[in-house]
Amino acid sequence: MRYGLFIIFFLSCFNVKSQHLDSLALRKIYTEILKNGKGHEWLRELCKDIGPRLSGSPGAEQAVQWAFQKFKEAGADTVWLQEVTVPRWVRGKKETGRIIDGSNKVQEIPTLALGNSVSTPDGGITAPLIEIRQMEDLALLGEEKIKGKIVFFNHPMDETSINTFGSYSSAGKYRWSGPSEAARYGAVASICRSVSLSVNDYPHTGAMRYNDSLPKIPCATISTAAANLLGKILKSDKNVKFHLEMHCQMMDSVLSYNVIAEIRGTLFPDEIITAGAHLDAWDNGEGAHDDGAGIVQCMEVIRTMKNLGIKPIRTIRAVAFMNEENGLRGGNVYAEEAKRKNEKHVAAIESDAGGFTPYGFGLDMDDQKRKKIQSWAPLFRNYKVWNFDYQYGGADITPLKRLLGTPVIGMAVDSQRYFDVHHASSDTFEKVNKRELLLGAAAMTALTYLLSYHGL
Amino acid sequence: MRYGLFIIFFLSCFNVKSQHLDSLALRKIYTEILKNGKGHEWLRELCKDIGPRLSGSPGAEQAVQWAFQKFKEAGADTVWLQEVTVPRWVRGKKETGRIIDGSNKVQEIPTLALGNSVSTPDGGITAPLIEIRQMEDLALLGEEKIKGKIVFFNHPMDETSINTFGSYSSAGKYRWSGPSEAARYGAVASICRSVSLSVNDYPHTGAMRYNDSLPKIPCATISTAAANLLGKILKSDKNVKFHLEMHCQMMDSVLSYNVIAEIRGTLFPDEIITAGAHLDAWDNGEGAHDDGAGIVQCMEVIRTMKNLGIKPIRTIRAVAFMNEENGLRGGNVYAEEAKRKNEKHVAAIESDAGGFTPYGFGLDMDDQKRKKIQSWAPLFRNYKVWNFDYQYGGADITPLKRLLGTPVIGMAVDSQRYFDVHHASSDTFEKVNKRELLLGAAAMTALTYLLSYHGL
Repeated sequence: MRYGLFIIFFLSCFNVKSQHLDSLALRKIYTEILKNGKGHEWLRELCKDIGPRLSGSPGAEQAVQWAFQKFKEAGADTVWLQEVTVPRWVRGKKETGRIIDGSNKVQEIPTLALGNSVSTPDGGITAPLIEIRQMEDLALLGEEKIKGKIVFFNHPMDETSINTFGSYSSAGKYRWSGPSEAARYGAVASICRSVSLSVNDYPHTGAMRYNDSLPKIPCATISTAAANLLGKILKSDKNVKFHLEMHCQMMDSVLSYNVIAEIRGTLFPDEIITAGAHLDAWDNGEGAHDDGAGIVQCMEVIRTMKNLGIKPIRTIRAVAFMNEENGLRGGNVYAEEAKRKNEKHVAAIESDAGGFTPYGFGLDMDDQKRKKIQSWAPLFRNYKVWNFDYQYGGADITPLKRLLGTPVIGMAVDSQRYFDVHHASSDTFEKVNKRELLLGAAAMTALTYLLSYHGL
Repeated sequence: MRYGLFIIFFLSCFNVKSQHLDSLALRKIYTEILKNGKGHEWLRELCKDIGPRLSGSPGAEQAVQWAFQKFKEAGADTVWLQEVTVPRWVRGKKETGRIIDGSNKVQEIPTLALGNSVSTPDGGITAPLIEIRQMEDLALLGEEKIKGKIVFFNHPMDETSINTFGSYSSAGKYRWSGPSEAARYGAVASICRSVSLSVNDYPHTGAMRYNDSLPKIPCATISTAAANLLGKILKSDKNVKFHLEMHCQMMDSVLSYNVIAEIRGTLFPDEIITAGAHLDAWDNGEGAHDDGAGIVQCMEVIRTMKNLGIKPIRTIRAVAFMNEENGLRGGNVYAEEAKRKNEKHVAAIESDAGGFTPYGFGLDMDDQKRKKIQSWAPLFRNYKVWNFDYQYGGADITPLKRLLGTPVIGMAVDSQRYFDVHHASSDTFEKVNKRELLLGAAAMTALTYLLSYHGL
């Protein structure tokens, strides 16, 4: 008891100079990470030694083992695997997409199945093509014009918005729910323009979801350059057909894991701060920005605390979530177990917007808690982290909010380049700048530190 | 006179809703540039069709003609060339730098003469090497230890600072004045670690300046990777020599030009806002970020005003300055002529920190004027331009400040990647992201617009 009182006395002294001490701690964190950060080298290993790691694939299982090892190396008190049953979708052999114009000239274009899509019959589907610019056009054209055709969703991302995630969400619906909407009017397949802000030859894949009450039609994405070309051809040629052949398949679910690393809190070990990112990545690339960057930033949180000898008051957990890309099973399992065990989650922060220079934090929580975090903004200003206005967390931590009411935080980064590479084979290690990546790790570690010391 | 009164009445009505109208204007500017901006395509031309363009070189003269043409295309009312006499430094055939270790093993390393350096004698210089980490070490070691040797300045940029330009300026002095300081103690040549935050194989050149009262010794830069290697060798081997051969030469000065494009102000044509960048670039690369990006952003200022039908109240001048890299003659001539003609310069803004996402403006001016610009900060916040705290303008516009007292403004951008490529052959068009470049153009155009409408 005397020991307890001493600690409270110590803490109240500490609070007097709290802002100043916090400021010193942040400087130490930034210096440690910018000088000695291993995140960039770790990312190289994840991207180059493992690479593609869609849930249920051998790459994902390798990534689980690798993350377990790295969290140990980083110095976590304990590291464990949390079982997650994940869907296993496989692409099979390479897709084929061909434009067949009115004069029967055939042109092959960069095509990639959308995640979760069913396959075409062997030999593929060849059908007349119809272009859709807005979802509403489907109803206007109706079954008469759409039935038996392949629908081509050609809705570009809005390049005039500064908030690229806003544009992504508007254009992304054509990928996500477009195929079922096309099937509603009798389409036999659908292709959609890649959700990217740059015009290039890479198809950008991503998850889609079938409406179970409608026929499941095969669906693919084509590169933005190909979409522009196809749009142009369709302007002057009314007899364009498309040939699509895909061999993808949804297999039985398999066992996989979240990887969890913990530094136990000294005073309030039962109060938990989660710093998370997702370990799975699409099968067509290295998943460097999405979300290898976030994963190594979470590892830096652990490494930095340990290397600086910081003993957090509350428990810090770094979590490498499985299956964000096509199911969110990892995030759900993590929250469900937390609820079952009646864990107290003070806050959760996620990095899943790429390894770019951080500029702020999205704060999805009640006003009082938001104001508390906003009161720390002056500590971050020197590090050019200035924006605490948005109210978004992250996909993997949303179940924590839903099931436990946990305040959730999303690290906001300068995402102007993100959708050039997002879900494409061009999302490689070389696209990640070391300093930008480490600044993200530092911002995440700094906020985790403050949450652990001050609670919420 | 009645017309004049009407205008004043109109302006006062305008002021009532000024903030709202400004906000609409900024939205139009950002939309126009993000949707229709030509800056990226223009940068491709400058980098790929012209490329290296050090003052006085054929490339620089091509760039002058190109810029003249582009400003016309962009829709300037008038475009003219302003004569500037520039130094002409030529590299001659490729430099050689070789480490010769104690056992006479020879290793060639990436080496580049510093701008303005004299050559070595034919056949080069071979001499023992001495490593210097801090400038003060020269005096401590003294002539006894330094005379007859090649001084190797191995002072790395500080990676722990967020302000990369601060680190650049600390490490840059070894490049700029190191050679003469080494000569003071009898060094026969000097090599310096490239001023870069990344460890790579590219030597990063840049200007140096001789102290006229000291012997002029040849000076070169070696890549950061080579500097690390050499530093390591020197730790265990005390008999390391270095061989340096360079054929660079300062020739007679030649005639070149600033390129100036103007949109005449409708109400106060004699009040001038300058938006500038520099057209010259080092001879070893494309000068994409430094400062091709700034040049095409200035062109976007003109193009956007014209395309949106904006008729600025005060005169807007976009200036492509010549000779920032090794003489600043263009900036000096521009300010001298302005002074001679008694021109009224309201403000000048420069973009010379790379084509990255802008986050603020440096404001080098008196408090009252600074506060006026800071009062516009809310207009920029939605565009993530938030920082109006720094007090720096830009090299080319500093003479305007010195000679006329003009308030000068530097566009601040996210420069974490800048010193990976700065002054190296890796500063290519491919390193510039289209959206980031155009966001810079939009921020510059927006501030130029506000200055033109509201004065300062």
